[in-house]
Amino acid sequence: MSTFGTVFRVTTYGESHCRGVGCIVDGVPPGLPLTEANIQPQLSRRRPGQSRLTTPVSRGGFMSGWEELGMDTRNTRDEKDRVTILSGTEHGIALGTPIGLSVPNEDQRPHDYSETDLYPRPSHADWTYLQKYGLKASSGGGRASARETIGRVAAGAIAEHYLRLALGVEIVAFVSSVGKVAMKFVEELEDERPHGTEFYELLNTVSRETVDADETRCPVKESADRMREVGEIMRIRHASGFMCRILEAKSNQDSIGGTVTCVIRNVPSGLGEPCFDKLEALLAHAMLSIPATKGFEIGSGFNGTKIPGHLHNDPYFRKPDGSLGTITNNSGGIQGGISNGEHIYFRVAFKPPATISLSQQTVTYAGDQGTLAARGRHDPCVVPRAVPIVEAMTSLVIMDAFLLQQQRKAAAALIPPTIAIHPSLRGVVPDGK
Amino acid sequence: MSTFGTVFRVTTYGESHCRGVGCIVDGVPPGLPLTEANIQPQLSRRRPGQSRLTTPVSRGGFMSGWEELGMDTRNTRDEKDRVTILSGTEHGIALGTPIGLSVPNEDQRPHDYSETDLYPRPSHADWTYLQKYGLKASSGGGRASARETIGRVAAGAIAEHYLRLALGVEIVAFVSSVGKVAMKFVEELEDERPHGTEFYELLNTVSRETVDADETRCPVKESADRMREVGEIMRIRHASGFMCRILEAKSNQDSIGGTVTCVIRNVPSGLGEPCFDKLEALLAHAMLSIPATKGFEIGSGFNGTKIPGHLHNDPYFRKPDGSLGTITNNSGGIQGGISNGEHIYFRVAFKPPATISLSQQTVTYAGDQGTLAARGRHDPCVVPRAVPIVEAMTSLVIMDAFLLQQQRKAAAALIPPTIAIHPSLRGVVPDGK
Amino acid sequence: MSTFGTVFRVTTYGESHCRGVGCIVDGVPPGLPLTEANIQPQLSRRRPGQSRLTTPVSRGGFMSGWEELGMDTRNTRDEKDRVTILSGTEHGIALGTPIGLSVPNEDQRPHDYSETDLYPRPSHADWTYLQKYGLKASSGGGRASARETIGRVAAGAIAEHYLRLALGVEIVAFVSSVGKVAMKFVEELEDERPHGTEFYELLNTVSRETVDADETRCPVKESADRMREVGEIMRIRHASGFMCRILEAKSNQDSIGGTVTCVIRNVPSGLGEPCFDKLEALLAHAMLSIPATKGFEIGSGFNGTKIPGHLHNDPYFRKPDGSLGTITNNSGGIQGGISNGEHIYFRVAFKPPATISLSQQTVTYAGDQGTLAARGRHDPCVVPRAVPIVEAMTSLVIMDAFLLQQQRKAAAALIPPTIAIHPSLRGVVPDGK
Amino acid sequence: MSTFGTVFRVTTYGESHCRGVGCIVDGVPPGLPLTEANIQPQLSRRRPGQSRLTTPVSRGGFMSGWEELGMDTRNTRDEKDRVTILSGTEHGIALGTPIGLSVPNEDQRPHDYSETDLYPRPSHADWTYLQKYGLKASSGGGRASARETIGRVAAGAIAEHYLRLALGVEIVAFVSSVGKVAMKFVEELEDERPHGTEFYELLNTVSRETVDADETRCPVKESADRMREVGEIMRIRHASGFMCRILEAKSNQDSIGGTVTCVIRNVPSGLGEPCFDKLEALLAHAMLSIPATKGFEIGSGFNGTKIPGHLHNDPYFRKPDGSLGTITNNSGGIQGGISNGEHIYFRVAFKPPATISLSQQTVTYAGDQGTLAARGRHDPCVVPRAVPIVEAMTSLVIMDAFLLQQQRKAAAALIPPTIAIHPSLRGVVPDGK
Repeated sequence: MSTFGTVFRVTTYGESHCRGVGCIVDGVPPGLPLTEANIQPQLSRRRPGQSRLTTPVSRGGFMSGWEELGMDTRNTRDEKDRVTILSGTEHGIALGTPIGLSVPNEDQRPHDYSETDLYPRPSHADWTYLQKYGLKASSGGGRASARETIGRVAAGAIAEHYLRLALGVEIVAFVSSVGKVAMKFVEELEDERPHGTEFYELLNTVSRETVDADETRCPVKESADRMREVGEIMRIRHASGFMCRILEAKSNQDSIGGTVTCVIRNVPSGLGEPCFDKLEALLAHAMLSIPATKGFEIGSGFNGTKIPGHLHNDPYFRKPDGSLGTITNNSGGIQGGISNGEHIYFRVAFKPPATISLSQQTVTYAGDQGTLAARGRHDPCVVPRAVPIVEAMTSLVIMDAFLLQQQRKAAAALIPPTIAIHPSLRGVVPDGK
Repeated sequence: MSTFGTVFRVTTYGESHCRGVGCIVDGVPPGLPLTEANIQPQLSRRRPGQSRLTTPVSRGGFMSGWEELGMDTRNTRDEKDRVTILSGTEHGIALGTPIGLSVPNEDQRPHDYSETDLYPRPSHADWTYLQKYGLKASSGGGRASARETIGRVAAGAIAEHYLRLALGVEIVAFVSSVGKVAMKFVEELEDERPHGTEFYELLNTVSRETVDADETRCPVKESADRMREVGEIMRIRHASGFMCRILEAKSNQDSIGGTVTCVIRNVPSGLGEPCFDKLEALLAHAMLSIPATKGFEIGSGFNGTKIPGHLHNDPYFRKPDGSLGTITNNSGGIQGGISNGEHIYFRVAFKPPATISLSQQTVTYAGDQGTLAARGRHDPCVVPRAVPIVEAMTSLVIMDAFLLQQQRKAAAALIPPTIAIHPSLRGVVPDGK
Repeated sequence: MSTFGTVFRVTTYGESHCRGVGCIVDGVPPGLPLTEANIQPQLSRRRPGQSRLTTPVSRGGFMSGWEELGMDTRNTRDEKDRVTILSGTEHGIALGTPIGLSVPNEDQRPHDYSETDLYPRPSHADWTYLQKYGLKASSGGGRASARETIGRVAAGAIAEHYLRLALGVEIVAFVSSVGKVAMKFVEELEDERPHGTEFYELLNTVSRETVDADETRCPVKESADRMREVGEIMRIRHASGFMCRILEAKSNQDSIGGTVTCVIRNVPSGLGEPCFDKLEALLAHAMLSIPATKGFEIGSGFNGTKIPGHLHNDPYFRKPDGSLGTITNNSGGIQGGISNGEHIYFRVAFKPPATISLSQQTVTYAGDQGTLAARGRHDPCVVPRAVPIVEAMTSLVIMDAFLLQQQRKAAAALIPPTIAIHPSLRGVVPDGK
Repeated sequence: MSTFGTVFRVTTYGESHCRGVGCIVDGVPPGLPLTEANIQPQLSRRRPGQSRLTTPVSRGGFMSGWEELGMDTRNTRDEKDRVTILSGTEHGIALGTPIGLSVPNEDQRPHDYSETDLYPRPSHADWTYLQKYGLKASSGGGRASARETIGRVAAGAIAEHYLRLALGVEIVAFVSSVGKVAMKFVEELEDERPHGTEFYELLNTVSRETVDADETRCPVKESADRMREVGEIMRIRHASGFMCRILEAKSNQDSIGGTVTCVIRNVPSGLGEPCFDKLEALLAHAMLSIPATKGFEIGSGFNGTKIPGHLHNDPYFRKPDGSLGTITNNSGGIQGGISNGEHIYFRVAFKPPATISLSQQTVTYAGDQGTLAARGRHDPCVVPRAVPIVEAMTSLVIMDAFLLQQQRKAAAALIPPTIAIHPSLRGVVPDGK
């Protein structure tokens, strides 16, 4: 469906070639100062055409779900993907009523029929949309286009804005690998050990500024340099599989995937709604709903399956303020589906974009064998642009979980104290609550 | 929350020490033949005490979310975790009304207060439940106990029963790794290549019988043997980290995680509800809602991020029946969030159980340093028992997605054919629909 | 569906002849003292066999949706419809996890096939259940039996218990008319005037004690006496339409409907979620989901359509505590879909029970003409038993709306105060919030 | 919340003075021919300024929830409330993806502060919005304005378009009373008898054409004439309560309510989702969510409570096609919460508009006594404009219920036939299903 969330609810609309894309955000806390300026920055970070890894595409042709029309690099950034608040605010303050958000599409004409339309593009959604709906948008990715994510990013920016303002929550995503080139902590995981101090330091300090310092959105320069090289190679890879850096330097021949890691700092403890809506389950749902994702892991993740329990468990210690923290954080900030106040961190896998200029042997809808070659320029790698999308979906999950927990806490606080202490509180609170 | 699904809706209840656990299943297709015999087998497969990897625990003490009281191995299996259908069927046929399902708990008394209750158990949900609810069940895992999964498994068995009967869907999960010991296809992924023929053959043929042939629930004997050894080691691992197979052969000292792989065969194409409820997003949500899970990957997964697009794309071919299939299946049977008719497969990571007999340095709720050691026997590894739970959650996702797609197809079929063919159908259907 | 509510969620199961009926209540505030004693009284008030208006029925035969098997009057009340809490509490305190509730059915055997089963009973759900599900419970009302309401009443009792304890909310329903015999305020409405002082006084003072003082559950003796007479007449009405009080004094020949009025006192202002989930919309939904209901009106209701605006508007006045109240209450305590702090009151119409002993000309499922006559004894009027059901559904609506508003208030309270006052607050608050 | 429906889901946004209003419609069957021309007519019927009963209002001042700015009668209809489809269709055919719909507001500026803003307007939502959200739109009704209903009407038009095209469903609402002036069938109900032949004939034949033939939207001329007179009186009623037809013929002094009756023809049997989402419960929810509604009754409604069972029951007869129908229709086309294939009909009560020019004694937000008098012209009666809104909400309910039933039927049809016939099918089907 096109709605996400229980209390903070986002509903999106829009295909690649319709009049526009956008969303309705229901459940925004009333009184929140809110203008387009709180939303636009993340939309601008999401836009195509910002780095060599995510080359802007030309108009028309054979486009991946991650490609969007009309992203002419000659245009200045400020003129693209401008969001308008249609409702729900007055004098720059949220009224608590639904926020309508709208972003027009640059190219609103469905494209003309072409020869390549006879083929379902391999690893795109052409075939499956046709199976599901009986027909499909005739141009580009339709609803499966990454353009659909604009509504999410806009809605996520509102959630994040509240979370930062009211709770000091910080959400930072960054590119942790491109192809086989990974940041050191990812590589270390392959030694099948818990994360080391360096990784925890990274989680403590990484910021949107350090992430955006490089076009790869990898916050460590040495890794970023190697990633950029991979993207460069993919752009000019020949069908033969050989690399050729000189010829066709402008064309995208092949593509490569990567991973995005995200950290959430200052999350209140107590968020997440077991048993089905554990916080990690909601994050996994949110991440796997982003186009091109193939995996999600939280805390120690897949590597954690290889670490024995006595090293994997996170012992508690007493913080200066008297509350408890954990010494290590293999849990990724969530235990039993509920946040424990530590940093939440997770990693998301993005497959290589399906659109490549290399010719592919495949069949037409009618089953006739043929060769399909994408025209124009295409993204060799999408992970840098995925960064704000991961942040947006994270914000939506945390916001909704926070509101749900607020109603519980507020309601519980109104129950007159009972005389007897519940046994579970012995040793926890001095004398009852 | 405790409800899962939109049209096929499961709501569960129950803690480890209350009177019982169970669920209500709403949306079962009327006319389905259904008795307890369709549900019990998966509950029995889920039960503790079935293998050396999942040693039965003694009563009381310091138990993990995966441990349950009263699972005395001397009892015959048939007497344990017996499910009763309370409503929604008559004469062995489902009425289409809610199915109430109930399984009594063996030990319904909350335990007595003990010294170890002063400590929040590391990497358990004690601390987070207290943060969320202000109090917690005083015994065992409460709602965070694996006993909660009984309701899911029972509900999933109904969904699976329908899917098999009506559509021939086959859902088979199996243990693909324990600690560092993995089936060959998992190890091969570390070469960063697409899956080979052997893996596809495994997906085609693996059955519940081959899975249950070994207590590890790994369908390949050679891998199973090595996994069992890991479990053995974990049971007798010393705090020092050294192995000692002779001493204390009965006690669980340490624990280890593992992964479960699941394949779904004969899924109709067209399932999944983009943009937020993509099929893989729902599967990820479902899997990460299972206790102790830390990761999910579908199709090529994390390894797929390292494979270039020209190797990762799945080209189409024409099947004998005239429909299209894909030659490779890096997509894992889902493209654009919608099933394409190929096998769906994914892998789920389970962390090492948090309950270990090795002493752990940690602090009490009050923040005082101390040493905590679990009493009794504990699961060194939970993945074999997780197999039917993964199958159950998979069934719930596929069932709900199937029903949602049925309403769309049925509704679309009633629209009178339009004269003009939609451009997206040119070349797809001979002359309109 | 069988789930009601967004945050406080009730899911029910059960037919008239299955093993039992019950529900799962999710979202109960943790820390609430809760035992069966908080639930049983409303279940006992709901039970059949409590008054001459609601004569207990014999076993078998031709029963209405409002009739239930096994309600032998010789049994003492205390042994019937006993509820058990299965989960979600410990030591008499709610854990915040789902509360499983269960009530066994007395007669769990589906009945034998009989001649009358050839007929869809007029104005029952036999025909429509068959149309919807393709089959139906072969005995009694199945899921359409009033026995289904047990789960609601149990769940509602928990909601009401919280609302009373935490907020002092008082919910009292009573019988306001039986057939043409109505309490004075209902009759006065036919003069097409706003409610007078006497009605407001009734709303202020009516209590469960005054309601239960008479078996009609009408709190005004004079009206109650006349209502009882109607019920008496219906029990012995001849097919001819003539009354005969002497013959067959024990049998139910005909039936009659009535209305239940409900008042909610001490509701906090601000509840209700426009635009679709206005508080009156949720109440209407809840009431029309009760078997046999045909209408709902709030505040001035249908009569209000005839009163000119200058008499219908509710002017404000200043209460002693400085807050505002309304002088009249034609709005029924809700304006714009949101509670205003005044008493909420509404009236619900119940049709005459469909089960009557008088012979009815109708056709069989196969379309053959015939005569159908109910056997046994039947309810001539259900409104007295509907009283606790109306209260229960009211409680569920108010509880859910309260929790939803709590999250909003709590979230808004965390937004740092802005410098500028929103224009809508000028004249409302001295200097901003 | 601002979302309505389970599978066919409508989410709306918009206040009276924001940039625009609109909605997202999710779940539209793919392949449906759809352009703005299918939506605009109902929006045009909803617009202010179409009759003397619903006088267009001037700009600014003191407006009711039913009044909207900028509805200058000099403008041609075609220029007002123009809807644009933003997404979800291509080449005039629905893609099955969300339909974004947008209608700009004429006056988008929040108004200047004025003296009357010191007062919460009696029986408006000013006070309750402030209580709920802590602030409110400073102009007009904000989200409580009838302008909010534009999104519903647009979405309802899409649902109705499908229902008519695919199933031949006809939905016709009409004004059945204004103040004390009612159509004959309403007056007859006061005799406490079942509906007569004339009423059933009306249900069979009433059409949108006969409804729109008179500006009152009452399809019977004699009643319409009397209703118009009431509206006329209300427009010029003096504060004294006396009528004065000559003076101030253009001003609205007082207001009056009325009722809208709606009939749905050709509804398939089997719609409605007991036990909580009975079809009448969903209709009641939908109707009471419309601004200014105070009551809902279905079938025999409140009058039905006074009719004895032997007259109220609807006996069956065999239709020419062999299926069953009911001779009378006191059930209103729904039994046990499920449609039975007969006409569904219900009546909705609308209170008198709260905005009147007559001075009202009330208090300011601060509690100071004063006199409030509305400026400008105002609706004396809203029921004619409510007609398309009632139709729209009806369409949304039927559409969603239809889709939910389609998934059940389609799923049940795939179950292999069982050998034994369920007892409930004996006598119903010749030999099993």
